[in-house]
Amino acid sequence: MTTTPTTVGQKVRIVGTGLIGTSLGIALSRSGFQVSLEDPSPTAVALARDLGAGVLAADTQALPDVVVVAAPPDVVADVVAAELSRWPEAIVTDAASVKGAVLSALTDSGADLSRYVGSHPMAGREKSGAMAAQGDLFEGRSWVLAPGPHASSDSIALVRKIAEAAGSVVLIMTPQEHDAAVAAVSHVPQIAASLVASRLRDLPPGAVALSGQGIRDVTRIAASDPGMWTQILAGNAPAVRGVLESLAQELDAVLVALRHLESDPDGGSVGARAVLARTVADGNAGHALIPGKHGAAPTTYETVIVVIPDEPGALGRLLGDVGEAGVNMEDLHLEHEIGQPFGLAELAVLPAAVQPLITALSSLGWRVHE
Amino acid sequence: MTTTPTTVGQKVRIVGTGLIGTSLGIALSRSGFQVSLEDPSPTAVALARDLGAGVLAADTQALPDVVVVAAPPDVVADVVAAELSRWPEAIVTDAASVKGAVLSALTDSGADLSRYVGSHPMAGREKSGAMAAQGDLFEGRSWVLAPGPHASSDSIALVRKIAEAAGSVVLIMTPQEHDAAVAAVSHVPQIAASLVASRLRDLPPGAVALSGQGIRDVTRIAASDPGMWTQILAGNAPAVRGVLESLAQELDAVLVALRHLESDPDGGSVGARAVLARTVADGNAGHALIPGKHGAAPTTYETVIVVIPDEPGALGRLLGDVGEAGVNMEDLHLEHEIGQPFGLAELAVLPAAVQPLITALSSLGWRVHE
Repeated sequence: MTTTPTTVGQKVRIVGTGLIGTSLGIALSRSGFQVSLEDPSPTAVALARDLGAGVLAADTQALPDVVVVAAPPDVVADVVAAELSRWPEAIVTDAASVKGAVLSALTDSGADLSRYVGSHPMAGREKSGAMAAQGDLFEGRSWVLAPGPHASSDSIALVRKIAEAAGSVVLIMTPQEHDAAVAAVSHVPQIAASLVASRLRDLPPGAVALSGQGIRDVTRIAASDPGMWTQILAGNAPAVRGVLESLAQELDAVLVALRHLESDPDGGSVGARAVLARTVADGNAGHALIPGKHGAAPTTYETVIVVIPDEPGALGRLLGDVGEAGVNMEDLHLEHEIGQPFGLAELAVLPAAVQPLITALSSLGWRVHE
Repeated sequence: MTTTPTTVGQKVRIVGTGLIGTSLGIALSRSGFQVSLEDPSPTAVALARDLGAGVLAADTQALPDVVVVAAPPDVVADVVAAELSRWPEAIVTDAASVKGAVLSALTDSGADLSRYVGSHPMAGREKSGAMAAQGDLFEGRSWVLAPGPHASSDSIALVRKIAEAAGSVVLIMTPQEHDAAVAAVSHVPQIAASLVASRLRDLPPGAVALSGQGIRDVTRIAASDPGMWTQILAGNAPAVRGVLESLAQELDAVLVALRHLESDPDGGSVGARAVLARTVADGNAGHALIPGKHGAAPTTYETVIVVIPDEPGALGRLLGDVGEAGVNMEDLHLEHEIGQPFGLAELAVLPAAVQPLITALSSLGWRVHE
């Protein structure tokens, strides 16, 4: 069998047919790649095949150009090492959410690191397993390539090809940069949300009734699975520790300022107030760095509030009228009694659209608040 | 002028005609109360009058039954003391968001505490000032009464009457309980959100692109105003310090666990992993205490994802079809490129409605994901 230049990298072997592996198989098969599938569970791999993710590895003789290891975090390094050794011509990548620990385990194992490029597709769903797989899971998402210092440029190019074929936008960073980034944008926010939610257990019954939208947003991810998060946090311990220590230092400064204000509420606590103001202002600056959806520049929306009357189809009629007004709604949030379709609709629109929308809806009889 | 029993408490004086004072004036005037308005700014008080919040205090001879002080936090105690002294027959309340500091300042001033009942309507808007006022601002919101130990039961009953007339649900707690509750459900979440957002400033350019929905939710309120929050946090320093210290203690335990795992990633770090798991599990337990909207029991929604095609009116048609299916949507979130009406719509519905909705929408040709 000869390989022409156009088909280099077309033969992809996926090890681990859960949500990520199966979704990737579906996406790559649709794009014309030859995908073979392997999983310790015969049931799981047969299901992935039936979902269109590829053929069973047992049913093909083709040598893979690229191996994608989509195994659970605690076995990734061992599986990558085994694949590097089994396929001496193939490039191997993995999809684990922490990169430094995998690379250092591989370094210790003496694997051929020129052919390994760690990666992390920033895609997922609340559900897991092949049944939840979607060929468009990676569409428009970031996919980080985190090559170690020994990875060859050919290896990096092939893994990039796979990620782009799945529809992802490729970002390249070092394993350390990747782990520090996910520590700051994902792992430390999880810990903070858990710690804030945890405080509610100390309140007397009834006091939690004062909860507003702020704490609901801050603690939404506090409902996450402890077992999964223990694995994630333990796997990224050094980077999480670094970011969390810097948070703890600032927290200590806030505590010192609060103690000053407590002992001297009226007096010259200018310095203490400045610490509080700077803390919130630094948070403003950090928050402003978060890009908009799909990596677009941050955009501020304004909210128009419309009263939805207690009539069948009122919400659908409202959306029709918004469309007629030529206004693109960026988001819609309903504030209403559970199970009732009427209440308040909060429409997020670009600032320039606020006045035209209010004028248009008011003229059609809608009760509108800015 | 004689006062009949049915009109006791009908004459309300509002001092401070910003958002809260003006909204309350509108609500009470609509309910038949005689409202008089006072504000240091002649322009502000005239605007409130023109918005239907009541008559100017200068234009009435009537002695107030109840005085509501809706002044900025840093002057509330002084204004309450002045009103108690000026109207020896009237009950006085205030609307400041911190209660212990006001009561202790009044105690120091020797005011008649039997006629003072501190309160805190849990209502507000992103905008401030009389122009943002709405007569329904308090509708369905909690309004905390936080009477001190010397408040008479008649005083408490009259302030309750005002809060209920504005449409609020009254909760009674001590000033200390109130301040501890808002520290936990509002002030500490604000600090946590600011500290998490602040960390993003330390990331290299580009790494913030890895931000997902989790950190967006956790840090949404990090965009809040530093000046306003410095006043709020300083005013509730003792209670915020207490809740924040308990958070800092748990944070230290997490840091110790992470350092253990860092120095001994493979070995017997069972205790360290248990700390991480318990932190997330405690967060689960705290999060589960947060009531649903409007104080209803917490309800879990499930999400149905529908592809919105690139056709005019598609979103309105979808909502019409959801209504036809007899399913009540609890919330709708759009995932789409900015300025584009097509993309994915995430419909939150009660769990029992998921399968009927998927069946109905699929039969109408919508592409639906669970």
